Amino acid sequence: MNSNDPSLPPPKADKATVRRHNLSLVLRTVHDEGEATRAGVAGRVGLTRAAVSSLVDQLLTEGFLTEWGKTFSGQAGRPGTALKVARTGLAGLGVEINIDYVTVCVVDLAGTDRVRLVERMDNRGAAPAAVLSQAARIAARAMESAAEQELRPVAAELALPGLVSGGAVRQAPNLGWNRVAVEGLFAQALSSLRPNRRALPVSADNEANLAAMAELWFGDAHDGGRVHSFIYLTGEIGVGGALVLGGRLLRGAHGFAGEIGHMVVEPDGPECRCGARGCLEQYAGQAALLRAAGLDEASGAAGVAELETRAQAGEPAAVAALDDAGRLLGRVLSGAVNLIDPDAVMLGGVFRPLMPWLAPAADAELTARVVSGLWTPGSGRLRASSSSGDAARGAAARVVREILADPAAYAERGTD
Amino acid sequence: MNSNDPSLPPPKADKATVRRHNLSLVLRTVHDEGEATRAGVAGRVGLTRAAVSSLVDQLLTEGFLTEWGKTFSGQAGRPGTALKVARTGLAGLGVEINIDYVTVCVVDLAGTDRVRLVERMDNRGAAPAAVLSQAARIAARAMESAAEQELRPVAAELALPGLVSGGAVRQAPNLGWNRVAVEGLFAQALSSLRPNRRALPVSADNEANLAAMAELWFGDAHDGGRVHSFIYLTGEIGVGGALVLGGRLLRGAHGFAGEIGHMVVEPDGPECRCGARGCLEQYAGQAALLRAAGLDEASGAAGVAELETRAQAGEPAAVAALDDAGRLLGRVLSGAVNLIDPDAVMLGGVFRPLMPWLAPAADAELTARVVSGLWTPGSGRLRASSSSGDAARGAAARVVREILADPAAYAERGTD
Repeated sequence: MNSNDPSLPPPKADKATVRRHNLSLVLRTVHDEGEATRAGVAGRVGLTRAAVSSLVDQLLTEGFLTEWGKTFSGQAGRPGTALKVARTGLAGLGVEINIDYVTVCVVDLAGTDRVRLVERMDNRGAAPAAVLSQAARIAARAMESAAEQELRPVAAELALPGLVSGGAVRQAPNLGWNRVAVEGLFAQALSSLRPNRRALPVSADNEANLAAMAELWFGDAHDGGRVHSFIYLTGEIGVGGALVLGGRLLRGAHGFAGEIGHMVVEPDGPECRCGARGCLEQYAGQAALLRAAGLDEASGAAGVAELETRAQAGEPAAVAALDDAGRLLGRVLSGAVNLIDPDAVMLGGVFRPLMPWLAPAADAELTARVVSGLWTPGSGRLRASSSSGDAARGAAARVVREILADPAAYAERGTD
Repeated sequence: MNSNDPSLPPPKADKATVRRHNLSLVLRTVHDEGEATRAGVAGRVGLTRAAVSSLVDQLLTEGFLTEWGKTFSGQAGRPGTALKVARTGLAGLGVEINIDYVTVCVVDLAGTDRVRLVERMDNRGAAPAAVLSQAARIAARAMESAAEQELRPVAAELALPGLVSGGAVRQAPNLGWNRVAVEGLFAQALSSLRPNRRALPVSADNEANLAAMAELWFGDAHDGGRVHSFIYLTGEIGVGGALVLGGRLLRGAHGFAGEIGHMVVEPDGPECRCGARGCLEQYAGQAALLRAAGLDEASGAAGVAELETRAQAGEPAAVAALDDAGRLLGRVLSGAVNLIDPDAVMLGGVFRPLMPWLAPAADAELTARVVSGLWTPGSGRLRASSSSGDAARGAAARVVREILADPAAYAERGTD
């Protein structure tokens, strides 16, 4: 008796729509299997062999699939040509613009990270247009590298540390951005760097959302298909968060779900960039961690590396700072876990290397406070995100997912 | 670029499955419209008039629909017989077992609350089997009333103040229940009271979940179809919570989502029945509200009425107690809102009559702490639940939803 109101069936589809849907179905099946024969695909999707062959032909012609060698199907012993998704041609471009770095990533149809370009820079206080122009320059450079690998990004997705909706950053407190039309500005900057080329469609999302999707698609959550519901928390200069429930990102009514960094730790605590007081970010963000350990809070990645070194050496101030932060993380996360009951909580960003010192106190707090009694120490429900859980890759991979979901929409954009 | 991974299409359905699905489609269409002609249904669902007539005939014969009078369709001016869902015959039985009362409700196919029986009793510390037997007696009595109205409940749903999964209460701290197989115990007790009758299938869920569904189906959230994503918080002896996202209940990975009452207010606060310290329940539950206002914390519904009277009279201790509780509610809710970004927060149970004194402080706290800046005072996003938002009705209505979702599964149970 747990089903909700069943939805109405979709309206009847015409032949062209059905074929378009089936093209995606076949492409996604090959993608998910890694390698498949026509017969294997037909068996998997429930279409006739002839129908699948026709769809595969189109996908081969349009460059979504490649054939290679002969394989033996396990069932009949009859050789068939193996199909794989193309490793050249259409690709996705992901651009993460964060407080102190920009990362650009090109991902191929198989989901592989083929080009990655990271530039450290301090974007705080810089004019949004200037930052986006610089990011476009880095993206254009990454596209040149991609071209050398015969990869052609067909759309770009931006990842930003703030509230993003409707093509704009509503608010990115740590960048100091308010109501910035990032999609348009970036598209314009990129177009001006690539005259006479087809303009790339650009979209944008919150960086923690995209890192969480990368974690879902490529990380531990992906292996074995075990974890489909998790809270993703990333420690950067801010603390970003995202919720993945049943394999889907929870966006919320306005697109602003997942702001765990602004859950309250101490109502009268230090003022936060968001305007409120005592937010988690003020206790577990990068600057707070460094400060609490007696390091320069503006020392960035180098400071985090130093903090890790000191903790590893057992330096009391470092260990105590991380233990305290872990306790507060656990306290806030216990509320989030009681609220949404996920399978796991994954910590990324600077939390990842610091897990050995953050996790014990956080785990203890979660064990004490998760009301179901299903949180036990060492259960593995609190874990470091995998290295794949990064926003730039998630952004590029989302473009790829869009291609896989409707290859026909991208077939015409094939020539550039 | 916001779509997630599209799912595979459902496997091909045979004729019988398609008819079964279409029976539900037609029944739900009449249900949702309130009244409809065969032609109107055909136009709405995209089936031929002949197909709809055949389906309608079966639904009439099996007692799911009734015909009445003539109506004029708006479009053609041609008279047609109006169809409505049957107001007699199949019905749902809902049984809310709470700390200090049991409510039984019978809801007809149209969703109307046709029988309601409430008995006040103190269930704390009583043996679960005894409480469930007593609830079964009340249910049997309500079924006698239903029979007089020619209504025949075909399944029962229990609502319980605790963590419910797999047919059992895992933990209901305020009842003092642990691992109680409520579905089996209740079914057995009800069967023994109704020998020679077909046993009713019994299922169970958390009471806040079911109250939230009642709110979604019958409350303000339903009118105009505006609010489909909300946090539901109900003040009882405990503080229960539920999350409705996009018109669906969020259950969580283990079925335990929505436990807002155990989000932390004060890490070193008073011990909670759940075993942790400083949970919201210890500050905003019924006992805490009464105690803070200088009333007997065990005075129950009478005490809440007295608290309301005193607040209405401007009695300072009462007003201050509610203001404080409102602030803490707002603080915890701001975290929940930052996390899941709902359209609204609805307060039910004892919070409902106390809203005039709880809401201002809660709203101010939400305004200050919701990071999107989209929470503004008096926006109407914080609201009292409608009177329909009760768990017993939600439970009975869920049975009705199950019938509407697959009438063929219930057609045979028609005779009792």
